[in-house]
Amino acid sequence: MSAAPGALEALIDALRRLPGVGQKSAQRMAYHLLQHDRPAARQLAQALGHAEQAVRHCARCHTFTEAEVCATCLDPARDARQLLVVETPADQAALERSGSYRGLYFVLMGRLSPLDGIGVHDIGLAPLLQRAQDGVVDELILATSFTAEGEATAQAIAQALRPQGLSVTRLARGVPVGSELEFVDLGTLAHALADRR
Amino acid sequence: MSAAPGALEALIDALRRLPGVGQKSAQRMAYHLLQHDRPAARQLAQALGHAEQAVRHCARCHTFTEAEVCATCLDPARDARQLLVVETPADQAALERSGSYRGLYFVLMGRLSPLDGIGVHDIGLAPLLQRAQDGVVDELILATSFTAEGEATAQAIAQALRPQGLSVTRLARGVPVGSELEFVDLGTLAHALADRR
Ligand SMILES: [Zn+2]
Ligand SMILES: [Zn+2]
Repeated sequence: MSAAPGALEALIDALRRLPGVGQKSAQRMAYHLLQHDRPAARQLAQALGHAEQAVRHCARCHTFTEAEVCATCLDPARDARQLLVVETPADQAALERSGSYRGLYFVLMGRLSPLDGIGVHDIGLAPLLQRAQDGVVDELILATSFTAEGEATAQAIAQALRPQGLSVTRLARGVPVGSELEFVDLGTLAHALADRR
Repeated sequence: MSAAPGALEALIDALRRLPGVGQKSAQRMAYHLLQHDRPAARQLAQALGHAEQAVRHCARCHTFTEAEVCATCLDPARDARQLLVVETPADQAALERSGSYRGLYFVLMGRLSPLDGIGVHDIGLAPLLQRAQDGVVDELILATSFTAEGEATAQAIAQALRPQGLSVTRLARGVPVGSELEFVDLGTLAHALADRR
């Protein structure tokens, strides 16, 4: 009955704040929820409220957790001498799925991105320096992305930590398993050749 | 501290129910909200809850509204003899922006889509038939999409309403204003020629 921006417009505005969602998608999402899936609207409202209250950062590795320290950091079966540095919880999850790593993690929750104004202080570099100097960690494995930004991040970390007497390594670059050489890009081939073992 | 699916996973699951959002996007959205924009998470939770409670369908035109009857339907300055049928509130908003229509609307909230199991009963055809027979409406303007599904929807409506003695018209197909002919698709050109005035 009122001409004030209504509940529908407010919902569209709120959906637009999601990354990658423009006006058209926000509209489509709002219409879909209100017309076809109100249970999903309720579920999302509850999940947002709960996550916003419950989710914080692990005091040791910085990943998302609902506890003071996450289950991975508390796992006594993991090798506390290795600390593997990733950009996001999704990267950590991918490495866990590979089943090939049994040490601990540090999650930067981002990477250097000077163009977006994300510098050394915006990623967890200071907490990482502190974490790595617990006297138990002796190898730091850098598993940031193999992009310009991920490489810059790895370099910044290596520069800060090599003076501390830690061994700092980097995931190998190379030909993906299952790839035919002729379809692999030239940069990857060059790296695979240089890093040959 | 628990191994149960946590608040973060629940949030990712809820975001995946939004149309066009897969696992990767849902993850990216959840990380973004929790890491960089918790106010947006709170805003979205509130907007969802409020819209889900407040938004219903206009008793006359079926669009989303927070009142029994929407402001457009209640506007005495509009010509109640014309009823223009659109698929979505977004289509109605586009026509309003054109400033070229002063009659009333009926919003189907969908269109026929046999492949998705959306038939005549899932769009607002019965309420439209009832609405159009108020004794005041004398022209029904069909402004469904110019797609196969939109055309089928328009045809179904026309078949149902022509016997009622109403004048049923369709938006003109033609060359978009500002287009150069050579870049207009052939189907549109053919229609523009057939519908020439
Ligand atoms: Zn942790
Ligand atoms: Zn209305």
